[in-house]
Amino acid sequence: VLQEKKIIIIGCGAGGGTAAQFARKQNRKAKITIIEKGNFAQYSKCGLPYVISGDIKNFDNLIEFSKEWFNKSNINILSNTSVESIDKINKKIIVKNNNSITKKSYDSIIIASGSNPQIPPFENINKDELPKGFHFLRTIEDGKKILKEISNIKKATIIGAGLIGLEIADSLYKKGIEINIIEALPEILSKTIDKDISNTIQEKISKTINLFTNYLITRIEKKGRDYKLFIKNNATFEKITIDTDLVIIATGTYPEIKIAKEAGCEIGVTGGIIVDNKSQTSLNNIFAVGDCTEYLDFVTKKPISIGLGSIVVRQGIAAGINAAGGNYTLPEGFLQTCTSKFFGFELASVGPISNNLDKNEIISSKYEGLSLPNYYPGGKLIKIKLIIDKKTGYILAAQGIGDNISLRINTIACAILNRMNVEIFRKLETAYAPPLAPTLDVITIVSDIAYKKLKRIN
Amino acid sequence: VLQEKKIIIIGCGAGGGTAAQFARKQNRKAKITIIEKGNFAQYSKCGLPYVISGDIKNFDNLIEFSKEWFNKSNINILSNTSVESIDKINKKIIVKNNNSITKKSYDSIIIASGSNPQIPPFENINKDELPKGFHFLRTIEDGKKILKEISNIKKATIIGAGLIGLEIADSLYKKGIEINIIEALPEILSKTIDKDISNTIQEKISKTINLFTNYLITRIEKKGRDYKLFIKNNATFEKITIDTDLVIIATGTYPEIKIAKEAGCEIGVTGGIIVDNKSQTSLNNIFAVGDCTEYLDFVTKKPISIGLGSIVVRQGIAAGINAAGGNYTLPEGFLQTCTSKFFGFELASVGPISNNLDKNEIISSKYEGLSLPNYYPGGKLIKIKLIIDKKTGYILAAQGIGDNISLRINTIACAILNRMNVEIFRKLETAYAPPLAPTLDVITIVSDIAYKKLKRIN
Repeated sequence: VLQEKKIIIIGCGAGGGTAAQFARKQNRKAKITIIEKGNFAQYSKCGLPYVISGDIKNFDNLIEFSKEWFNKSNINILSNTSVESIDKINKKIIVKNNNSITKKSYDSIIIASGSNPQIPPFENINKDELPKGFHFLRTIEDGKKILKEISNIKKATIIGAGLIGLEIADSLYKKGIEINIIEALPEILSKTIDKDISNTIQEKISKTINLFTNYLITRIEKKGRDYKLFIKNNATFEKITIDTDLVIIATGTYPEIKIAKEAGCEIGVTGGIIVDNKSQTSLNNIFAVGDCTEYLDFVTKKPISIGLGSIVVRQGIAAGINAAGGNYTLPEGFLQTCTSKFFGFELASVGPISNNLDKNEIISSKYEGLSLPNYYPGGKLIKIKLIIDKKTGYILAAQGIGDNISLRINTIACAILNRMNVEIFRKLETAYAPPLAPTLDVITIVSDIAYKKLKRIN
Repeated sequence: VLQEKKIIIIGCGAGGGTAAQFARKQNRKAKITIIEKGNFAQYSKCGLPYVISGDIKNFDNLIEFSKEWFNKSNINILSNTSVESIDKINKKIIVKNNNSITKKSYDSIIIASGSNPQIPPFENINKDELPKGFHFLRTIEDGKKILKEISNIKKATIIGAGLIGLEIADSLYKKGIEINIIEALPEILSKTIDKDISNTIQEKISKTINLFTNYLITRIEKKGRDYKLFIKNNATFEKITIDTDLVIIATGTYPEIKIAKEAGCEIGVTGGIIVDNKSQTSLNNIFAVGDCTEYLDFVTKKPISIGLGSIVVRQGIAAGINAAGGNYTLPEGFLQTCTSKFFGFELASVGPISNNLDKNEIISSKYEGLSLPNYYPGGKLIKIKLIIDKKTGYILAAQGIGDNISLRINTIACAILNRMNVEIFRKLETAYAPPLAPTLDVITIVSDIAYKKLKRIN
């Protein structure tokens, strides 16, 4: 018998929206309410750079599920509404809309409060009131502002060379804007891939854009309608001045946990709300999903905070089903499979980067080969790195660059999820046809290399 | 200590050539001899249609490893030489070159004798002496003859609508030739994919070419330089006459086992030489690889004869290493992962087709979805079918059509090799980025559908 559960979801991002949909699928009698502080329903934040670039026509296209869609699915969505607090004793949630405060009773809550942008320690810059010309790109509103400003600018600066910073840089570059990227660390993409792989990208994109790695911004000076950025190299102390018309800050995020923390949800070492394999917090009937949460890395079993759309959606499925009375268990950690495309590069990775593993306990192999048999014209170079466990031979992680690398990394993700030994994985029968794939794919060759290194040691 | 093993390899196709290379890598002291009845060293037979189409410039490009290459690797290659018999008692192999017969002693033999073309029971047609205008496309010599003839023809007929028949048809179609395909069975690709998937292809390609499924050729009549083919429908008995300038026969192959059989190797129900997971025959020190062999289907554990380049190469690796004193074990059967591209279709499959499984013991699911998130332009439709075991939920097989389907099928191949339950596979974290992949890939959605069907039953 289905229970008439009252489910309140805080936030209508990919996590909250997905949770609502799966709660509805699980339990057609559930009373589901989404409380969203913004004005839109569920839209793709990851898609924002591609509206800037023009690949996607306009911001409305990013709306995956409209308010009407939710209403048709009998999901009540309160937009422009914020959550003040959770009253656990009376099982009520206190919400605010237009200065009017109301209470809504719940059986389960799903917290999908997302994250806040991190801001580098600039002189004179207040996060909540960025000066004109300074932007984040985290909402449709941000995107619209940027799109308006870039129509007549020549130079843009992106602070932060992570996946999102590089995606934004590429989108502005496609508009004919000269690009500076300033990164505080010596390497780009340092959270996503190892140095030896990112260096390949770094070398090539620095021919297209002005890439300043290992630089910190020391001072910002307004110069007419534009800005001067004073930057200093962390190692050499060299100082450079950059003129720019626009600055986009993409230096990461931190979990938004205020409501959860006040309600008593346990917060983890990464600053996120701790959730388990049901996406439940430390409190009964309170679930959490997405960027505000902390869960485990599948390989290391260490806590990680979540910042990938693919993970957010999977947590949303789990929380939605579980909050609605079902039973959905996630694997014991996330693989963090991810991919991106910028400046002509396709990049993908799965599992922890080497820095998050004990160097003495791993073996890595690298291989660069063609996507097609040597005799068939048009094969593209694919570079791939595999990391295995020195004791067990288990596949732990992989990273790569090249055409359709994400689909190859998915296969390795499947191997990791199965705790598969490289000795067997290297024998995987991959599909072969001259115009499509070689008899031995790069994923099997890089595995064979790793296995041989392993055998030499053991 | 490495043994100075004498290894004789019969045949320098992909299987024999690969075996030689891996024997050499395993044992630098081994004395390796390849006996090849043709004049070329290792070349790609699978690549032949793409020379016809012009995608590959000329037949020499197909040579992956030349005689010089083998000689440099200290592998002795005797071309234009055939094997007469194996003298097991004296451990000698009797070979013939230009009517001179010699004996060569061996420690191990690797039989890579390939297959022979099957020929439909035509009136007046002798396999060893095809009439002018009739061809196989199995060797560079065949390819050269066809390429010469097609320069001034208008109509070609391909007999057999399997993978190879369709690849050949596409290659001639690209040359502007009108194409007939005659298939004796009601469906195309009946050995590779299920009817519900092949029908999608059948419908679309029959708009481009004249496809006669369920037709047998009853009579062939020479008409000047060309031919009239009289065909009859197996069901309706309708008779049609086809004019054609050229006929290519692609109705499958059967294993070439003469030498192996005479030597006493056990022959299996499929007509191939039985080999085990070391690619060894029933006789000590005699290995066999490729189209002449019979091994197991990984899923059903039933014997299959081998006809895929990807498998041939993997057997070659195993036989080469094992014959040279190493130890390489193949999985307990082949997944038969395969892919092909013709008339704009990309197709891939892994595991047995439904007809080779017990219908009462399986559940299948189908899904058609986009390769990209809905909001990102340019996503391509991908159709995918998954077959799981009704009792255990194990993934048994998959088939699909669409862009990069082979790489998606590889991921499912990895799942099958791990005897993975669909319940877990549907939770696989696939890589996501708007211009590259949706948050939930078609492989995870089709798995979720299968799981739900499974749950409804159990």
